[in-house]
Amino acid sequence: MVIIIQDGASEETIQNIIGKVTELGFAPHPLYGVEKTVVAVIGDKTQEQIDSLQAMPGVERIVPILRPFKLAARTVQPEGTQVDLGGGVVVGGRQVVMMAGPCAIESAEQYLSIGRFVRAAGASVLRGGIFKPRTSPHDFQGLREEGIPILRQVREELGMLLISEVLDPRGVELMHDVVDIFQIGTRNMQNFSLLTECGKSGKPVVIKRGMCATLEDLLKAAEYVLVEGNNRVILCERGIRTFEDQYRSTLDISAVPALKSMSHLPVIVDPSHAAGRTDLVPALCKAAIAAGADGLLVETHCNPLKALVDGSQALDAEQFHTLMDALRPFAHAAGREL
Amino acid sequence: MVIIIQDGASEETIQNIIGKVTELGFAPHPLYGVEKTVVAVIGDKTQEQIDSLQAMPGVERIVPILRPFKLAARTVQPEGTQVDLGGGVVVGGRQVVMMAGPCAIESAEQYLSIGRFVRAAGASVLRGGIFKPRTSPHDFQGLREEGIPILRQVREELGMLLISEVLDPRGVELMHDVVDIFQIGTRNMQNFSLLTECGKSGKPVVIKRGMCATLEDLLKAAEYVLVEGNNRVILCERGIRTFEDQYRSTLDISAVPALKSMSHLPVIVDPSHAAGRTDLVPALCKAAIAAGADGLLVETHCNPLKALVDGSQALDAEQFHTLMDALRPFAHAAGREL
Amino acid sequence: MVIIIQDGASEETIQNIIGKVTELGFAPHPLYGVEKTVVAVIGDKTQEQIDSLQAMPGVERIVPILRPFKLAARTVQPEGTQVDLGGGVVVGGRQVVMMAGPCAIESAEQYLSIGRFVRAAGASVLRGGIFKPRTSPHDFQGLREEGIPILRQVREELGMLLISEVLDPRGVELMHDVVDIFQIGTRNMQNFSLLTECGKSGKPVVIKRGMCATLEDLLKAAEYVLVEGNNRVILCERGIRTFEDQYRSTLDISAVPALKSMSHLPVIVDPSHAAGRTDLVPALCKAAIAAGADGLLVETHCNPLKALVDGSQALDAEQFHTLMDALRPFAHAAGREL
Amino acid sequence: MVIIIQDGASEETIQNIIGKVTELGFAPHPLYGVEKTVVAVIGDKTQEQIDSLQAMPGVERIVPILRPFKLAARTVQPEGTQVDLGGGVVVGGRQVVMMAGPCAIESAEQYLSIGRFVRAAGASVLRGGIFKPRTSPHDFQGLREEGIPILRQVREELGMLLISEVLDPRGVELMHDVVDIFQIGTRNMQNFSLLTECGKSGKPVVIKRGMCATLEDLLKAAEYVLVEGNNRVILCERGIRTFEDQYRSTLDISAVPALKSMSHLPVIVDPSHAAGRTDLVPALCKAAIAAGADGLLVETHCNPLKALVDGSQALDAEQFHTLMDALRPFAHAAGREL
Repeated sequence: MVIIIQDGASEETIQNIIGKVTELGFAPHPLYGVEKTVVAVIGDKTQEQIDSLQAMPGVERIVPILRPFKLAARTVQPEGTQVDLGGGVVVGGRQVVMMAGPCAIESAEQYLSIGRFVRAAGASVLRGGIFKPRTSPHDFQGLREEGIPILRQVREELGMLLISEVLDPRGVELMHDVVDIFQIGTRNMQNFSLLTECGKSGKPVVIKRGMCATLEDLLKAAEYVLVEGNNRVILCERGIRTFEDQYRSTLDISAVPALKSMSHLPVIVDPSHAAGRTDLVPALCKAAIAAGADGLLVETHCNPLKALVDGSQALDAEQFHTLMDALRPFAHAAGREL
Repeated sequence: MVIIIQDGASEETIQNIIGKVTELGFAPHPLYGVEKTVVAVIGDKTQEQIDSLQAMPGVERIVPILRPFKLAARTVQPEGTQVDLGGGVVVGGRQVVMMAGPCAIESAEQYLSIGRFVRAAGASVLRGGIFKPRTSPHDFQGLREEGIPILRQVREELGMLLISEVLDPRGVELMHDVVDIFQIGTRNMQNFSLLTECGKSGKPVVIKRGMCATLEDLLKAAEYVLVEGNNRVILCERGIRTFEDQYRSTLDISAVPALKSMSHLPVIVDPSHAAGRTDLVPALCKAAIAAGADGLLVETHCNPLKALVDGSQALDAEQFHTLMDALRPFAHAAGREL
Repeated sequence: MVIIIQDGASEETIQNIIGKVTELGFAPHPLYGVEKTVVAVIGDKTQEQIDSLQAMPGVERIVPILRPFKLAARTVQPEGTQVDLGGGVVVGGRQVVMMAGPCAIESAEQYLSIGRFVRAAGASVLRGGIFKPRTSPHDFQGLREEGIPILRQVREELGMLLISEVLDPRGVELMHDVVDIFQIGTRNMQNFSLLTECGKSGKPVVIKRGMCATLEDLLKAAEYVLVEGNNRVILCERGIRTFEDQYRSTLDISAVPALKSMSHLPVIVDPSHAAGRTDLVPALCKAAIAAGADGLLVETHCNPLKALVDGSQALDAEQFHTLMDALRPFAHAAGREL
Repeated sequence: MVIIIQDGASEETIQNIIGKVTELGFAPHPLYGVEKTVVAVIGDKTQEQIDSLQAMPGVERIVPILRPFKLAARTVQPEGTQVDLGGGVVVGGRQVVMMAGPCAIESAEQYLSIGRFVRAAGASVLRGGIFKPRTSPHDFQGLREEGIPILRQVREELGMLLISEVLDPRGVELMHDVVDIFQIGTRNMQNFSLLTECGKSGKPVVIKRGMCATLEDLLKAAEYVLVEGNNRVILCERGIRTFEDQYRSTLDISAVPALKSMSHLPVIVDPSHAAGRTDLVPALCKAAIAAGADGLLVETHCNPLKALVDGSQALDAEQFHTLMDALRPFAHAAGREL
């Protein structure tokens, strides 16, 4: 870290800071410039140590040098991690993995019907939630426990990989045997108990970026799963909150190449929640593939007009087929398969 | 709600929308202007119904008219709710309630020492966490279960009300008997399982605004507690994330009067986490009281230089005494006691 | 517009509002619901009239229905506007128009050298500024008036179209005869005097979105040029300011399809200023083309290490050639030429 | 500055960077840690030099140490600058200076009527614009040149100091003799030609923070005026753009103490434009005074219901009198006069 000394701090104040750094066990390198004095500190620091230095008199600010994530860093696995979901589906390889399905599972019929058309169009993974995090308690919260048998039935009947959101650490065990991939939603990106439980489960985990999280925050969240020995983590960009109100969130497309340069973990994109309106979804899917995304998470519904949740952003069977056809040339331009 | 029809939609398209509204059981009022057609819809709508209409061809956008929170709305309790914490301490009355203490409890000695000086300076409630939500798993996570006996001991010895953060639905029961007020942190504002458990507990709950949550989101989060029959809810503004980087978060001071006009719930302010640096804390405390805050949540530490968490934003004993003295004239200017 | 009446407003208050609407010459349609009363108002309103109603007792808020831009609206030119830059270069047609060059012109040699390699690689338009808006007065401000002869010389020698930024209404006349396209920078998007002068000039104008401007703000800025009878306006997305600090700005890729659905004007993307670092530029260029951009504005330099401004985001000759080759498959996937 | 070297950079790459630093005339101090290598650089750098280093292979990022503003820095004038407006009114001293008046001047009668009541209530400065920067060209743009005689008449008749917005460098001369203080609006904070002209005018200048500008940006804008030898600069916080939509902008109250610690310039607050609704104005005025603001800029109107611009945020005569009475106890609590 680099400690920037306040203008006009006395030599005694500076020596106190240097003493404290030494006391913490690090090597201080004071550098006196005409206008500013800084103390460069070599050694591995914890957040607690940085905090304690920041509180000292004479410290203007501290600039951390080390990135605050370790296991997720690109340097750990320079060639990139491929997450094997089973059934020959690998995220982070040559294939752009398509995950599609409804926001909420409403019934076995609805779910089967959607599953069939997304499989026919070429999706490898079927999404669908039974626990829905709704901003208001007066909104539909999902089928909850009653959805478990539906997940089991559809998974067997269609032979597809299932991804489903888990909201509560107690839900990890409950859903362990009926889903293939856990999804951590944007509101739970920093639900650390939940991340830890997912880490322990050993299952692949898709972590959606918090709608106000920085890329560093997202990688530190991933760290909670990785630290449990589970390295099957997939990062998901799904839009951040800005002042723009023409769409629900602002898809941060730069996050795709930037995350890939910071981390070895694969990156997918959820254009449906970012946009909140179907008309933008195709353009955002194409942009995501062009920017290097390893997969897409797209909302579909057999009858968007009757969807209980987020119908306005779900594609129907025909729209989804059209989309898949439209995306293939972009996947090929990117040197990949879809 | 008001449905705004796309420019150039055919009369048939408009009639389909009107038919759908009627089918959902509401009264449609189409209004044809020179440039725009809108359909005003009378009746109580659910989010699902709004979503299903939004997906219809010809719908440009839907403007909801009803506020998406009910139990938290000012109209439910126009004179404002006073939350009785016990021991004669009431949030939302004439008193500006001072809650102070360390970010993290480190030991019984540290906690007692801090508790004594904040009580002496006039604080009514002692804060202190044993479960710390840290962005990185490599940072100190709090004493966790080992902190329970310390909470019990300090509460008895000092006879103060305790507020402590709960992170996990499973922690609500664990801490039920040793704390007086549950705190829901900014990262958990939309942890709906946790909100529901706190609602069921019947204890007073301080809900911190998510760092990227709108005021409506905060009130909808409060709704999750209220819907369980627990109306001892206190809202807490603690800063939002913006592009400004001179402070950790941007304290949204307008949230204080705006929340009070939207809701009957009391509003407190946490200037320490908003600023992330002690030098701004006094000015923000004064501003919060001037803006009408019902209380403050301030970080203090017996030795900020040795604090394990957030030392750079904690006031020491002398700074806290000075602050309390400096705040009283502002409380009086606001017609309140401190 | 729809006027939403405050809860508990008396019938007299509502009648006053209705009276005011009538007095302003519009047709009020009051709608009484169980929980809310609204007054829908038919007719074309000015901002002043909306403001005056908003100030009335009993008005909770006003929801405008009409879009606040008229000449820029898609409905004015449903098939989309093609901006002919001369020399067979058309923005908004089949071609993805490549504009490239240095941020700042430093000398005739530098500018010629860059112009030659971007032309060789396939760019149609050469960018380069002589007036630089720098956040600090201590930074290099461009060659200013001394750059005029360089612009003239390079334009003649290379026979390329030139785009250059204009900062001051007094600069429009000065640069009129030496550039082909005026560029309004992000800091000047709401410099209305400047927009008006550019409108009067009759030249093509690229308007960069303000770094904190909504899409509606951008279209209202375009309106200032259009209202002068100049419809050769090109919109440019260049990133907005958010809390993310891994890149200079957050490229809002959704702006591309959204602007195209709102407006008939062509849309280009500036990935260089959005990212502020060269390593992200190729991915953002690909994403922009995939999302439907009509052109790109890319910074290049013959020797980025010696660039006086923004060297860290400029591509050198080899990088630019490689980029052009990499982009062609994406342009073809999008059904376009590059 | 501190240059952070990319992980895995070769010793040759590092030596190249060190060589470049030396070539630029600075003293490089390489520091080799276990995980990271950094090169601390002593000496005064320009932005161009930082940019050129940033483009070098092996450079991960550069952390500037020096603040990018010089003349505005607190250290230049540690005791703080007092801006004498004439007539015994000083901004930055013991008095909280009240500036009030309409957004737009509509007629001599309107302006005189408002001027009389704000003077009677205790305001020292009368605001009022004749050039209005409106987001849409279809909105009222102010009286423009026709307003000049009204400014002259009202200033003489009331003997008040006038503050008025200037939009265009050509307007500075035009308004020079009829106003006492120039106001640079939020949209023009980075209109550098305009700042320079205001600097040359020698008149006091209020610079409103851009709605998306950081505090550093604001101070760098102030630098453009200061560099012309005009040190009568007043900074104005007026709200920034965030995702919150209950108010027009989010007043950044922390900016008041933070700007005062960064700079010697006085700081005032405009609560009216921040809120965009009158009901929040009193709370924000109180908070601003409590946070240490040196003055307030408040919109008032003789008849807000008939105001041509921003009526919904203007206080009428009675509201303004009530406000002034309500603010005095807060000014006294802050040790100041109002």
